[in-house]
Amino acid sequence: MKIPEILLVEAEHKPGSLARVLTVIGEAGLVVEHLATVSRSQGRTVWEITLEMDEADDQSLFDRIDALPTARVLGKSDRVFNRHRGGKIRTVSSMEIGSIQILRDLYTPGVARVCLAIQRDPSLARQYTNLQNTVAIVTNGTAILGLGDIGALAGLPVMEGKAALFASLAGISGVPILIEAREPASVIETVAAIAPSFGAIQLEDIGAPACFEIEQALVERLDIPVLHDDQHGTAVVTLAAVRNAGRIADQRLSSSVVGQIGLGAAGIGIARLLRARGVERILGADLDPDAVARFVAMGGEPLELERIMAESDIVIATTGVKGLIRPEQVRAGQIVLALSNPEPEIEPRVAMAAGAAFAADGQSVNNVLGFPGLFRGALDAGARRFTDAMLLAAAEAIGDCADTGKLVPESLDPAVHEAVAAAVRAAAESGQ
Amino acid sequence: MKIPEILLVEAEHKPGSLARVLTVIGEAGLVVEHLATVSRSQGRTVWEITLEMDEADDQSLFDRIDALPTARVLGKSDRVFNRHRGGKIRTVSSMEIGSIQILRDLYTPGVARVCLAIQRDPSLARQYTNLQNTVAIVTNGTAILGLGDIGALAGLPVMEGKAALFASLAGISGVPILIEAREPASVIETVAAIAPSFGAIQLEDIGAPACFEIEQALVERLDIPVLHDDQHGTAVVTLAAVRNAGRIADQRLSSSVVGQIGLGAAGIGIARLLRARGVERILGADLDPDAVARFVAMGGEPLELERIMAESDIVIATTGVKGLIRPEQVRAGQIVLALSNPEPEIEPRVAMAAGAAFAADGQSVNNVLGFPGLFRGALDAGARRFTDAMLLAAAEAIGDCADTGKLVPESLDPAVHEAVAAAVRAAAESGQ
Repeated sequence: MKIPEILLVEAEHKPGSLARVLTVIGEAGLVVEHLATVSRSQGRTVWEITLEMDEADDQSLFDRIDALPTARVLGKSDRVFNRHRGGKIRTVSSMEIGSIQILRDLYTPGVARVCLAIQRDPSLARQYTNLQNTVAIVTNGTAILGLGDIGALAGLPVMEGKAALFASLAGISGVPILIEAREPASVIETVAAIAPSFGAIQLEDIGAPACFEIEQALVERLDIPVLHDDQHGTAVVTLAAVRNAGRIADQRLSSSVVGQIGLGAAGIGIARLLRARGVERILGADLDPDAVARFVAMGGEPLELERIMAESDIVIATTGVKGLIRPEQVRAGQIVLALSNPEPEIEPRVAMAAGAAFAADGQSVNNVLGFPGLFRGALDAGARRFTDAMLLAAAEAIGDCADTGKLVPESLDPAVHEAVAAAVRAAAESGQ
Repeated sequence: MKIPEILLVEAEHKPGSLARVLTVIGEAGLVVEHLATVSRSQGRTVWEITLEMDEADDQSLFDRIDALPTARVLGKSDRVFNRHRGGKIRTVSSMEIGSIQILRDLYTPGVARVCLAIQRDPSLARQYTNLQNTVAIVTNGTAILGLGDIGALAGLPVMEGKAALFASLAGISGVPILIEAREPASVIETVAAIAPSFGAIQLEDIGAPACFEIEQALVERLDIPVLHDDQHGTAVVTLAAVRNAGRIADQRLSSSVVGQIGLGAAGIGIARLLRARGVERILGADLDPDAVARFVAMGGEPLELERIMAESDIVIATTGVKGLIRPEQVRAGQIVLALSNPEPEIEPRVAMAAGAAFAADGQSVNNVLGFPGLFRGALDAGARRFTDAMLLAAAEAIGDCADTGKLVPESLDPAVHEAVAAAVRAAAESGQ
């Protein structure tokens, strides 16, 4: 599995010396993801070069760079690890506790009055606690990123990342909850037992098919919003991208035939939302017969990959299989979104060269655009669950925020997250 | 049940007008807990008067104040509620996520490297996540403050208060976890299932006897520190106070006979720690035979109240029953700590008048002095559980921080919490 590594390479400050380093990297079959200067002194420059690589590649690449007369490898950078050191989130007090009087108001004896008020009228918890601003980020570690079943603890950096983004982009207090259990029933019972602690539940990186059973059971049991981000958050951002791709390529989404290659959590979530958006004909393929059965049950039409490529106006691939789509399978005028990360089913430039009207990969469809505003809007509305109307409103808002000719807007733009939250809230309130 | 209320009273800015208001309050049998000026203009002052009162007292008191020629009641202050508005804690990102490069380091794709590193070596979670700095504050709402079984949600303001104090006094991220279950087994299973999310577990305001079973089971099952604060946090602060009271009254704790009136969670916790401190003879009484049986099992000697008062050098009362100890029961030279809040078993001045060498009530023994440093020290040491040595070290550190002639130090003094954390850490590390 390729992961991003940052090499520190020192090269002479002379014409051609950086080019020679990059040539060696290119000859090793590796793509430069990012490049930056770290320092320069005495005619030598230290470069930080980000590559997606296996650890197995390390030594042979290092040897080849060291063999150059004008460069040497200093090692790998710890920048990413340094940024994670000590964790990415922390809880703070909303008020400085600077005097005994404040202590007596916030804690005993003053707090007793607030407790009794909430006992009499539980809806006051929304006003006088952080409950309605707190989202559990729950994982059992069975499908962390593209890394698979690496366990809940190893997934904690991702959950903290989500919490840091919740805080930065939507002012939400995210709480990572790690459950080391594979059976859906254990996860369901545990989340239900602690649900009173939270305003909403985000399920995260839980593998299929358990994710479907867990989400459905919790949505039915709890009276707070529950959302499996890998299904619906991804679907919302994908729908925004598909809508804008259609505009760029001059195709109407609702009358298009959509082909889905890969029917895991993301694929099923996308299919559901496309149905809710009014797309009538959705073709789909997956190697897992159970996944296909779930797809058929929601009105999808099973078909083999070759025929999906031939019959679809829009192709959405979420298989995790690099290079699965061959250029000769691309139909002229087709929209191709090959979303697997880090490597797509077909490179966008290859798809375009093969005749696609528009093509993109997973780098452009970042679920950071979705979840902060989805939860902010649901919490602000006091919604008891996420409805299709709320998800569709989020997708429209994301799509509307993109500049003309772009699939989606900039992930960190605060205006986008505010627009999504407002749209979701309005959809929730008009449905109540 | 009396709770603190804040009256806003407007009085003429003339000699005697405030005195007349306070006289009316005194005649109503109410004690002024706090008094402050809110504003003064045009010869009138608005006073904020904090009283512990029943709501039933309200109207008759208001009428009597309004009957004064120089004052009138403006209403009750919302100051406490205002301070709780929106909640007392929030989660923040440790780093500003201001660029796509930071996003790519903190979240995908960079985070994958940190996940894989933790998968290979789980101990790295301590270094690269907030895990070792995060404490669950768990309640089932069955014994919130002195309010009793008001439910977990109504207890949330207390849990948030603990979390705000953890953040302010020890830099710990506290996470309130509410479990609406009374049966110990449900609480145990739920906490065990989510335990991988936390560096330690604080059990809070869980009623006896369930609290004993829950704590014992979790201490045995989990490899992270678990502490029921109402037992052991209270015991630590009480031991510090008892030690200093002994110094003030010139009594040696270990050779003293200690009498405990009330053997609930706090009483049992105190008895346990006194035993660990080497106190040989502990007498105890409680109306609940099961509580007495637990006390006997740990080496305590059951006796009726009258004889406890007669035979004890030090009396510690934790019954919740106002005025339970009669002045004529106090023995000359005795130390009397009547700890029930808000109203003690005997007023310190009454006990002193009856011949006690030293007397105090629960106002002086605040568990805020204990839990922040206890958890900070345990987390910093990487301790797998709290030991008696750690609890005793905390009590010594708290006692040592008090000024000469005082029972305990100031609750909000950062130096106290640092000293407690350092003492607990040292005790944990020397025991490993």
